[in-house]
Amino acid sequence: MENRDAILRRLARIEGQVRGLGRMVADEAYCVDVLTQLAAVSKALDRVGFEVLTDHTNHCVRDAVERGGPEAQERVAELLEAVERFARTR
Amino acid sequence: MENRDAILRRLARIEGQVRGLGRMVADEAYCVDVLTQLAAVSKALDRVGFEVLTDHTNHCVRDAVERGGPEAQERVAELLEAVERFARTR
Amino acid sequence: MENRDAILRRLARIEGQVRGLGRMVADEAYCVDVLTQLAAVSKALDRVGFEVLTDHTNHCVRDAVERGGPEAQERVAELLEAVERFARTR
Amino acid sequence: MENRDAILRRLARIEGQVRGLGRMVADEAYCVDVLTQLAAVSKALDRVGFEVLTDHTNHCVRDAVERGGPEAQERVAELLEAVERFARTR
Repeated sequence: MENRDAILRRLARIEGQVRGLGRMVADEAYCVDVLTQLAAVSKALDRVGFEVLTDHTNHCVRDAVERGGPEAQERVAELLEAVERFARTR
Repeated sequence: MENRDAILRRLARIEGQVRGLGRMVADEAYCVDVLTQLAAVSKALDRVGFEVLTDHTNHCVRDAVERGGPEAQERVAELLEAVERFARTR
Repeated sequence: MENRDAILRRLARIEGQVRGLGRMVADEAYCVDVLTQLAAVSKALDRVGFEVLTDHTNHCVRDAVERGGPEAQERVAELLEAVERFARTR
Repeated sequence: MENRDAILRRLARIEGQVRGLGRMVADEAYCVDVLTQLAAVSKALDRVGFEVLTDHTNHCVRDAVERGGPEAQERVAELLEAVERFARTR
């Protein structure tokens, strides 16, 4: 991935946020504050997903479509399935 | 929270999944596999959110409504805001 | 419902927007414009859902919780299921 | 669009469902039933969005990428923006 380092930094920050959520729950933080923080982590995770998707479309999928043939067909179908899965989980 | 231990176990598992995602990206795993795993983590996070919301509604909100008065009003408004935030991030 | 007239007006506008989407597709509008308009209608529908949820929580659920007893339990469980369904479809 | 007739039929059905929602609200149907039906309409709308996206990717975007040049770049960027908007509204 082209933006691999940025994605790795984001994932490291999300890992820390999830650990922080555990501390909030262990320390009996107010539920609404836990929910607000959960929503922030969920959003951060979606942004990583969107960056991976962008990178994948701009490289693997475009390269396959430019080369043409059955692999292009396959890569586009696979991309659309990934978009569907990505969108459904929200 | 009543189900605190279960929530803490889920959060610990999610933390491990996020770390695993970092390893996948570092090892140049196929983007579509990264997206599939991201969707799984996102779903697991949503389930934690829903459990916190359930616990909060069954305890803090119900207790406040049973006691009545201005605090009941406030707790219900706060709950609805949390639901809105929770639903929007997906 | 307390805000029934406002909800009915919103639904009438959404019905018109869906009809407009049909015209766009029939007239071979550019796909990206169709997607943008679909996203707007989907958002408008979510807002109606959120208003119905707010009204329901502020009336049926609060009344049941104030009266107490097994019906309160049932109404809160039903509310949480509705929130789950509402959040999942996005 | 290749599957234009199927999309038009789906939109006509959704228009009828939105009209039905108006009748439910006017007839004071139980809020939870209104929410359940709203979730069904929202899901149906998402399916239309996904079909439009699929059609667009398989035709406009693939054609542009096969031809190459700056238009390919533009079509892929536009597709990713549409996916982002589509995913955010859920």
